[in-house]
Amino acid sequence: MASVDVGVGLLGYGTVGASVSRMLAESGEEIERATGHRLRVVRALVRDPAKERSFPAADGVLTTDFATLRDDPDVDVIAEVMGGVRPAGDYVRELLRAGKPVVSANKQLVAREGADLFATASNAGVQLRFEASVCAAIPVVKVLRESLIATNVHRVLGIVNGTTNFILSQMERGAAYADALAVAQDRGYAEADPTDDVEGLDAAAKMAILATVAFGSRVTPDEVETTGITSLTPAHFAAASELGMCVKLVGIATLAGEEVDVRVQPAFVERSHPLAAVDGAFNAVMLQGDAIREITLEGPGAGGTETASAVVADLVSVVGTSGSGFLQNDACWRDLARLDGNAWRSAFYVHLDVADEPGVLAHAASRFAAHDVSVAQLVQRLEDGRASLNLVLHEAPLGSLRAALAEISVFPEVLDRPFVAPVIA
Amino acid sequence: MASVDVGVGLLGYGTVGASVSRMLAESGEEIERATGHRLRVVRALVRDPAKERSFPAADGVLTTDFATLRDDPDVDVIAEVMGGVRPAGDYVRELLRAGKPVVSANKQLVAREGADLFATASNAGVQLRFEASVCAAIPVVKVLRESLIATNVHRVLGIVNGTTNFILSQMERGAAYADALAVAQDRGYAEADPTDDVEGLDAAAKMAILATVAFGSRVTPDEVETTGITSLTPAHFAAASELGMCVKLVGIATLAGEEVDVRVQPAFVERSHPLAAVDGAFNAVMLQGDAIREITLEGPGAGGTETASAVVADLVSVVGTSGSGFLQNDACWRDLARLDGNAWRSAFYVHLDVADEPGVLAHAASRFAAHDVSVAQLVQRLEDGRASLNLVLHEAPLGSLRAALAEISVFPEVLDRPFVAPVIA
Repeated sequence: MASVDVGVGLLGYGTVGASVSRMLAESGEEIERATGHRLRVVRALVRDPAKERSFPAADGVLTTDFATLRDDPDVDVIAEVMGGVRPAGDYVRELLRAGKPVVSANKQLVAREGADLFATASNAGVQLRFEASVCAAIPVVKVLRESLIATNVHRVLGIVNGTTNFILSQMERGAAYADALAVAQDRGYAEADPTDDVEGLDAAAKMAILATVAFGSRVTPDEVETTGITSLTPAHFAAASELGMCVKLVGIATLAGEEVDVRVQPAFVERSHPLAAVDGAFNAVMLQGDAIREITLEGPGAGGTETASAVVADLVSVVGTSGSGFLQNDACWRDLARLDGNAWRSAFYVHLDVADEPGVLAHAASRFAAHDVSVAQLVQRLEDGRASLNLVLHEAPLGSLRAALAEISVFPEVLDRPFVAPVIA
Repeated sequence: MASVDVGVGLLGYGTVGASVSRMLAESGEEIERATGHRLRVVRALVRDPAKERSFPAADGVLTTDFATLRDDPDVDVIAEVMGGVRPAGDYVRELLRAGKPVVSANKQLVAREGADLFATASNAGVQLRFEASVCAAIPVVKVLRESLIATNVHRVLGIVNGTTNFILSQMERGAAYADALAVAQDRGYAEADPTDDVEGLDAAAKMAILATVAFGSRVTPDEVETTGITSLTPAHFAAASELGMCVKLVGIATLAGEEVDVRVQPAFVERSHPLAAVDGAFNAVMLQGDAIREITLEGPGAGGTETASAVVADLVSVVGTSGSGFLQNDACWRDLARLDGNAWRSAFYVHLDVADEPGVLAHAASRFAAHDVSVAQLVQRLEDGRASLNLVLHEAPLGSLRAALAEISVFPEVLDRPFVAPVIA
């Protein structure tokens, strides 16, 4: 097994890029021992070569000229670690066309332009890998595509956004939303403009990628029904706690027959469920399938070295499978219909604020029953002449629940819009 | 990408073998789409071809003659799913020598004869893979070898035996050991002779394999310091509960500098730790490394289809990387020294039964202090004139703890041998 030099080109040399560079240098021997190949960063595209970096590139590696990287015959494989959809997408396309395999850590790019990028890669006969684009070092893409190749995965549950999970963990300990967000920002978990995270958009992009890989049919972020965490209050956490549950922002991708459904929303998770134990800024993904029952992967879903670890693993996988025609490119091979949202089934938690008057409960219960939605648990609390109804409903189609709630909401005794969250048991 | 027929030979066609055969038939298209290869079972070695099987082999596939399998030019890759060290090991060796790559689900074989088998594979230039030998469908070997290739993993924590975890979960709910074992036997989780499981031998073999892969240095099962669960009583669970912990049989593999330590023993696990949430017959492995902090993989660690899923994934990986010289054979590349057991560091739980007399506690505390072992938590309970001391000690070398306990044990007030368990926080 002769040692071969593999030249790596980097698009971007920021936190992740510098970590990739450091790992290839420091783990070079280990990688060579395992694969027979020595990987070296030979070229990196940057905006400002003079900028200080945590692990400096070797002399002559940095360039500000894309064509220099693209046309360098020593560049065998590319790691795209620059982020953003433009110009990253154009660069990746051009490199693929030039016959260079690409590894991307770019969630938005893969989620939004995957169809086109994978077609380009396929036409050029080169690989495009993207492990680092979802949950950093947690190897969920490799596990889905390789380890579970013979398993029909029909559901993916994910806590895929560390920022919101950190905020919800703080709220579980009693903090109000605004205070929890401030702590997250203070610790660098949340950005100054936290919209992408707290509105669930980041999670939606990741769930789109995971659903695409798991079900083999393209799902884009705008198809993901998404609700963020901004309207959660301490009352929701108190209600969850009383029911033996906790509140998590959960991505749920479901394959129901030949139809697919992907959503991200606050969910009530039973304390005994593996996802309930995911604390702070960690991520976890549970894969449910026929042969394997369920496998859960948990770990840090972000971070420079964590992301770089996944980028390096992908680089090595590209090298290791090159020439064998193995697992290249697009995971999609079919075009599944979208499940009508009303047909999506789940157990649900419902909170109703009602006037404390006789008959309200019976009235509400009769509306649920009329739509075949049955009540598993009920906790009623009185406060200032108002009653707070916390219901856990057995699994039912979302449409039936909506129909029942529409009828219940018009009661004069119902004081506020009902709050609904799926229950993960 | 032309479709290629890959002939699979099975050593054994029992529960796992039949599941492998079914999966290759039912997921054949999916595998071909992803890899460009169609895998088919063309030959299977069995003792009794007339036996009824859950997924029957095609006509002419079953044979009772090993040479027929070995010499069949249509057999490109072998899955060893027969179990046992003899004759499985001899068959595997002979097949490797004949130039056939082998995938094994055989934990005892890989753990005991790995050194020789991997050398044989390496000499023959063919692969030997063993994902299914540890924790069934949980892809911990692939994750360690491929996804974490650039990460220096320095600790592996594992709940790797479902039988004992089921028994401990029952005991946590109040059952006595004998009753919990009976339930496990009744449900098919424990065998009539449960020795291998309850004495920790099964877990030791798995931890030996995981330590070998994680640290790149051979560890055999008899080097694993092993304590089973047979001496655990309800009192241990009560004490753990009082301390906010639970009792698990945990495998702990540690790389300390250039020395390795592997042990399996009952441990006290803090309720907030990911391993604490692993309930019933499930397995979980936590990998701790520099770049990734920690990644935890959880799922069913046994079962016919679960094991078959890992076997098929390995078959596909062999095919996918053949000719690329990638990740073949032995994970070992160095020979690390063994850490002196007394130098192994951990936090510990200690239980002491002492006579309820003044000064005992001060006396014990002074012995711990004399050996630089400091007390983090103490719960004392009185019962029938005896005092039960439950101590949680800060991290210390096991040797210091042993020295302190040796001095404490000779006090006339100490009524019983101290119970010691590492604390996983």
